[in-house]
Amino acid sequence: MKQIGVGILGFGTVGAGVADGLLRNRETFAKRLGVDVVLRKVADLDIERDRGVAVPREILTTDAMAAIDDPEVQIVVELIGGTGIAKKLILAAIERGKNVVTANKKLLSESGREIFEAAAKAGVDIYFGAAVGGGIPIIRSLREGLAGNEIESMKGILNGTCNYILTRMIKEGAAFADVLKDAQKLGFAEADPTLDIDGWDTAHKASILASLAYSIPVDPHAIEVKGIRNLSSVDVVYADKLGYSVKLLAQIDRVGSQVAVGVHPTLIPKGHMLAAVNGVFNAVMVHGDLSGDLLFYGRGAGRAPTASTVVGDIGDIARNLTGGGARYKSAIRYDNEQTLSVMPVGEVRSEFYVRCMVQDRCGAFGRIGVMFGQHDVSIKMATSHEFLKGYEEEGVIPVVIRTHMAKTGDVEAAVSDIEQLDIVKGRPVVMRMVKEQG
Amino acid sequence: MKQIGVGILGFGTVGAGVADGLLRNRETFAKRLGVDVVLRKVADLDIERDRGVAVPREILTTDAMAAIDDPEVQIVVELIGGTGIAKKLILAAIERGKNVVTANKKLLSESGREIFEAAAKAGVDIYFGAAVGGGIPIIRSLREGLAGNEIESMKGILNGTCNYILTRMIKEGAAFADVLKDAQKLGFAEADPTLDIDGWDTAHKASILASLAYSIPVDPHAIEVKGIRNLSSVDVVYADKLGYSVKLLAQIDRVGSQVAVGVHPTLIPKGHMLAAVNGVFNAVMVHGDLSGDLLFYGRGAGRAPTASTVVGDIGDIARNLTGGGARYKSAIRYDNEQTLSVMPVGEVRSEFYVRCMVQDRCGAFGRIGVMFGQHDVSIKMATSHEFLKGYEEEGVIPVVIRTHMAKTGDVEAAVSDIEQLDIVKGRPVVMRMVKEQG
Repeated sequence: MKQIGVGILGFGTVGAGVADGLLRNRETFAKRLGVDVVLRKVADLDIERDRGVAVPREILTTDAMAAIDDPEVQIVVELIGGTGIAKKLILAAIERGKNVVTANKKLLSESGREIFEAAAKAGVDIYFGAAVGGGIPIIRSLREGLAGNEIESMKGILNGTCNYILTRMIKEGAAFADVLKDAQKLGFAEADPTLDIDGWDTAHKASILASLAYSIPVDPHAIEVKGIRNLSSVDVVYADKLGYSVKLLAQIDRVGSQVAVGVHPTLIPKGHMLAAVNGVFNAVMVHGDLSGDLLFYGRGAGRAPTASTVVGDIGDIARNLTGGGARYKSAIRYDNEQTLSVMPVGEVRSEFYVRCMVQDRCGAFGRIGVMFGQHDVSIKMATSHEFLKGYEEEGVIPVVIRTHMAKTGDVEAAVSDIEQLDIVKGRPVVMRMVKEQG
Repeated sequence: MKQIGVGILGFGTVGAGVADGLLRNRETFAKRLGVDVVLRKVADLDIERDRGVAVPREILTTDAMAAIDDPEVQIVVELIGGTGIAKKLILAAIERGKNVVTANKKLLSESGREIFEAAAKAGVDIYFGAAVGGGIPIIRSLREGLAGNEIESMKGILNGTCNYILTRMIKEGAAFADVLKDAQKLGFAEADPTLDIDGWDTAHKASILASLAYSIPVDPHAIEVKGIRNLSSVDVVYADKLGYSVKLLAQIDRVGSQVAVGVHPTLIPKGHMLAAVNGVFNAVMVHGDLSGDLLFYGRGAGRAPTASTVVGDIGDIARNLTGGGARYKSAIRYDNEQTLSVMPVGEVRSEFYVRCMVQDRCGAFGRIGVMFGQHDVSIKMATSHEFLKGYEEEGVIPVVIRTHMAKTGDVEAAVSDIEQLDIVKGRPVVMRMVKEQG
């Protein structure tokens, strides 16, 4: 049986998982593929620490380029992460005609075009299934199973740390800061959680999904990215009483010749499948013009699930290399720029939830309402509900406004004015709202 | 750009959807594939009726063989269904070296081996993504994305008609017969619903999933198949009160060198993602050794969703034909027969729910309990709960027994004995129970 060699760059959690998967399931894998995938090299600066995987000593190296240059290595698996050395090594591998598998969402989100175009030029495969959704085959499904569909929208819960924190805030009515501390203790959150809780990890993944579905570049810095840092338990608990779950949601919607992309804390009706996605799990709901609603759910991170997807990608390349294969298949192309563009942030429309702390005095509602009206934002409901009792702070009470469909820019303008009112204390909390599942 | 020709056999609901999809999204599809997929022939006995699709008159034919023999047709799409003419035409196409796409679950479940082996012999592709889960890319994900995993279990809600009926029985506390009648009026159930409500449609799909995951033949007649026909609203309503949703569930579990496969009405804890799958939607939860729990959810039937998957399969073949492609990829192989076998029905273990109508007199519980004990079935809970009040029938009350893990054979034996007791009226209702999501 033909053999295909793999070199892994980065022997961290996922790297160890991939090595383990390739070694442990080698036979089953070969049977399913018709190719024998052989682990040839594992490169890391630290090759002494025990990762609990029986990797033959002789294939460990501290020299990444040695792994790339090994003539028996046809597939280079980059699991170092970040946009520095990882980028250099991927480009070096491509230059040398090696095929690449990477889980590096930040790199692909920020430098995807450069990397994919280099791969196309060199005629090599580059797979990245694990960059979005960890163990969930969402990238593959978009690229292949749904190739016959026009994608109308995607909604993703793409960051396990945020979802874990929000799930506990909902279930325990606990404060954000306390749950975060605890999540860090338990290893569900990084020591520096910024990338996760401020929404950037989700934004990187959203930009990759949007680029793949629409064949246009989506700069994560050109879309609105809001995290969960300033959410208070009052918002989460009140949403729960209203029949909604709060999730950090990436939303991608095709609107005519534009694609609206954003990341926001969002109220999701409890009947919606996405509201049932709890803890560290991720999920993506895709709406295709033919398929209708599809949900993909699973573990969005962690050693084994991520390794599962990386190994699947390795299998694809091994097949392509033995079968002759359709190489262009894997890379994102950017050939819709003439017909499609990313919608400006201010133009993106949604229903909104706005909660502000207001002095409990006559006329307060009116003054806030006027501000929305001045900016063409129509109010569906304004309330200082009994559920909100208990959250007053010396004479200041939470007031929640729900709007009809409105432009982000108009709502932001109204909220800025409201923030200036003498009766309003602190920065209002703004969330999106999602409709019942159709 | 290279062109690949498609011939559709069967211009029914799905056939019209596929024709529509190929014609409507032709450009996007070509861009994504790098191949131009052209609809060359559509064969049906009735080519007069308007299907609401603008298919050029000259490609319509009443002669299926003409479509198969058309030298410009490389891909034959069988959407006639059934095991008669459909099988003859598929084998004829394979014989002539044509690649095949089919959504025919009954045929693949009953004659899969003959067809797949013929395709392998002829060196052609045969794709069947739409045979299970309609618009859900579950077949593709098992075959490709999860190729690096050992599949430990699968749980599927695979029949939209049953799920629609059960969902309404839960929400309305309505009786099975009434909901069925209404579902037939609304077009959610066939005039002859036997295949659906007695579990056979689900069994056909389960056997295909199990064969694909484990590379062994799984005869749907060699597994236990129970439908929802004898469920009463008392069971559904009581399950709801206990915190469970009742679903018709296909369960596939690898246990050592055996694979347990069965189709049963099953109680699923409400926290479980599968419990949130309502109405006509389908879902499959897969547990891979690397991926952990994955859920695939979407529309399991209907014109567009099924067409979406069929078109995706056509795209794969078109890619394979242009790229040289890994042909062996698509067919199910049966090369694990030496190491794996289907577990005998009686040996399959589960926790059970048993409900019987018992005369409300002292000692009844005891006499029923004894029967379970005699057959080594240990009882977790026996109750005639207040929730069951209102379901008494002149002195006969519903009694529910929940068991610990037990063998199907033992439970069946105990239930048969219980049925003989003078204090028990009618046939007890037996359901499986699923544990909380890990």
